Amino acid sequence: MLKLKKISNGRKNVEQVKELLDSRSGDNLAKYRETAAGILKNVQKNGDLAVLEYTSRFDGVDFEASELEVKEAEIEAALKEVDQDFIKALKNAAANIKDFHAEQKDKSWQKQKKPGIITGQICQPLKRAGVYVPGGRAAYPSSVLMTVIPAKVAGVEEIIMLTPPDKEGKVSPVILAAAKIAGVDRIFKIGGAQAVAAAAYGTETIPGVDIIVGPGNIYVSMAKELVFGQVKIDMIAGPSEIMIMAEKDSNPAYIAADLMSQAEHDPLASSILVTDAPELIEKVKEELEKQIKEMSKKDIIKESLENFGLMIEVVNQEAALEMINLVAPEHLELAVKNPFELLPAVENAGSIFLGEYTPEPIGDYYAGPNHVLPTNSTARFFSPLSVRDFVKYSGFIHYSKEALKEASDDVICLAEGEGLDAHANSIKIRKQDQ
Amino acid sequence: MLKLKKISNGRKNVEQVKELLDSRSGDNLAKYRETAAGILKNVQKNGDLAVLEYTSRFDGVDFEASELEVKEAEIEAALKEVDQDFIKALKNAAANIKDFHAEQKDKSWQKQKKPGIITGQICQPLKRAGVYVPGGRAAYPSSVLMTVIPAKVAGVEEIIMLTPPDKEGKVSPVILAAAKIAGVDRIFKIGGAQAVAAAAYGTETIPGVDIIVGPGNIYVSMAKELVFGQVKIDMIAGPSEIMIMAEKDSNPAYIAADLMSQAEHDPLASSILVTDAPELIEKVKEELEKQIKEMSKKDIIKESLENFGLMIEVVNQEAALEMINLVAPEHLELAVKNPFELLPAVENAGSIFLGEYTPEPIGDYYAGPNHVLPTNSTARFFSPLSVRDFVKYSGFIHYSKEALKEASDDVICLAEGEGLDAHANSIKIRKQDQ
Repeated sequence: MLKLKKISNGRKNVEQVKELLDSRSGDNLAKYRETAAGILKNVQKNGDLAVLEYTSRFDGVDFEASELEVKEAEIEAALKEVDQDFIKALKNAAANIKDFHAEQKDKSWQKQKKPGIITGQICQPLKRAGVYVPGGRAAYPSSVLMTVIPAKVAGVEEIIMLTPPDKEGKVSPVILAAAKIAGVDRIFKIGGAQAVAAAAYGTETIPGVDIIVGPGNIYVSMAKELVFGQVKIDMIAGPSEIMIMAEKDSNPAYIAADLMSQAEHDPLASSILVTDAPELIEKVKEELEKQIKEMSKKDIIKESLENFGLMIEVVNQEAALEMINLVAPEHLELAVKNPFELLPAVENAGSIFLGEYTPEPIGDYYAGPNHVLPTNSTARFFSPLSVRDFVKYSGFIHYSKEALKEASDDVICLAEGEGLDAHANSIKIRKQDQ
Repeated sequence: MLKLKKISNGRKNVEQVKELLDSRSGDNLAKYRETAAGILKNVQKNGDLAVLEYTSRFDGVDFEASELEVKEAEIEAALKEVDQDFIKALKNAAANIKDFHAEQKDKSWQKQKKPGIITGQICQPLKRAGVYVPGGRAAYPSSVLMTVIPAKVAGVEEIIMLTPPDKEGKVSPVILAAAKIAGVDRIFKIGGAQAVAAAAYGTETIPGVDIIVGPGNIYVSMAKELVFGQVKIDMIAGPSEIMIMAEKDSNPAYIAADLMSQAEHDPLASSILVTDAPELIEKVKEELEKQIKEMSKKDIIKESLENFGLMIEVVNQEAALEMINLVAPEHLELAVKNPFELLPAVENAGSIFLGEYTPEPIGDYYAGPNHVLPTNSTARFFSPLSVRDFVKYSGFIHYSKEALKEASDDVICLAEGEGLDAHANSIKIRKQDQ
């Protein structure tokens, strides 16, 4: 019997939901941060030497520096080794992801406000991006597509991938295949905080990058936080969550399946149903009992659902939407008949799945929008990973002699008002010459 | 006699320039971070009570909670008290800034890839923004315009300003005037790490926000870093810098004036001339000696120029541009005859000033592009403050029953390939029903 938490109605319950979600975050990160900081320092100072040492210690592989990079032959072999249906599915997914992200491209522009005054903004891709891919069972080829393709679409010149080797010094063939399909330029067998350090500072073998993206363990996350400012990073991902909004006639079997698909990721994942139909909650519970038996990760699903799952009963759809906006979930399914009618009322959510035939996995793998999303209520202000993360902007200004003259008095007045007379002088000295 | 550093040519000199810029950053931040963390914790726990205590201790003002917010009458009084030419200049600047930032607005979109498949992206403003404005002599009305207007243009519902009171419990009238002109909704007399804490967590009096922007002292910066993730923040600004690229016929008086206008900000500011004309360097030096005498901040200018100023001689324009791109300066002046010809070669710079009649102060105050810029070589990957900082995105997906059926095999294959069978189940259970 699954023991599921249930709450009903009322604005104050939002606090309960937030507390539940927050309780997933560990708060004693100091020791991980310290370890990561030590690794960063060592790699910054000793380069490849330090990287090889850590690779030996943490991954159990004794590499020469020249063995850090994956060779073209390994990639070709991987592409043959991997199941061809899987390759085909990856390629179809990659095409959809590319197609969606292409719409996010921004352009440089300039405008002439009046004769002699031009202002504008230049949008350029970052030069080099580093994509981290965890090893072992957390190595998801879908995440390779989701992190690499936006960089590729942005026009990043060189994309390097960093991923830890297994005990035999190899990288999983599906990861190599996904990297090839997504368009990675170079792949290095290096993981953990040492990978983040190498990419941030550069070593003899590993080129320094401008941005590091992708999920990793706690050491990787800490290292990313610590190198932020030295390079750009994407968000620090917390445990994952889904909220499903459903109504009386929603299909309980679908909802149960989708709650479980979130729960299987991690005992810390949170799966929440919110509905104005109390009878639906009971039906979903029954479906969960039934379906969980067949799941290979049933222990994780049970732990996740019992600790961080939640059934919320509200008075009406409006109350459900209010709850959703206050929680700001990473994933939101509107498993209702008319989801597009509700969409304008959704203010805070990372990715929104509309209708009963749009389960989260179609977005996790396939439809095109990114699956790297703001977690833990940060959809209030953070955004999905996108092409925007891989570009940067410069402003520019041109004033003619005459235009400057016309603006002179205002600018001098402002500069002097702020007590910055060298600023005023820079305008005055030009005005004098006129 | 000013003692100016000079280097010439050669790619390896870029390292010297970078070391010079880096040497401005203090590296022992731990104790500031600890102090800020303590303040954050106290405000999070004790709300207004803690805020009032810190305001008494650090600002020397004993407020009641009801006195924290600036009253409408104070703002009206300020608008009358401030010099009317200054008000007019601020309004003209605000109009230009608004005009420029309006071009940065992004739209939501959706597309129907084929019948039954809709994907899209929603762009929405953040709900509430907090703008920090330092007190005392660092209180710049121009920075109020530059931080508030992008939020306003983005459509942020409520913009609150946080600024420390002076000893009399007042806020500078020019700051209040700028806030009014820019469109701030509420102003609170609260500074330091306690202001950041109050805005991040909310107190009885101060509403919690979604983003905190604006410069501040080291405690403010540390507090912003620490609340990042709880809210969004803009960049952590380091010391400021300018690079001026000039040629044989460039006007040395203008260049000297512009180098000084950067230098007067801060002894840690860095002003760099890069040119292929050695004779120009000598002329600029002479001009500096001449003009510095008249400057009210001549001591700061001297200290900045001697410690962190630099004259760089290169072989040709190409070498100058290479140097610029490797340094990635916050401000770049192309003080040459044909600046637009060089613009496409500029890869890394926060804001670019084109031609001899476009000195940095026209951008600092007036032209429209933002003056909150990435410092210390981070223009390689960071961007000026913009409307983009005040919005967030959600992805969305809709698949019809038929469209899902068509995609089913691919998605099931990918999910099973990653060992996530609850994901596969969520697709299969819908496929069965068809």
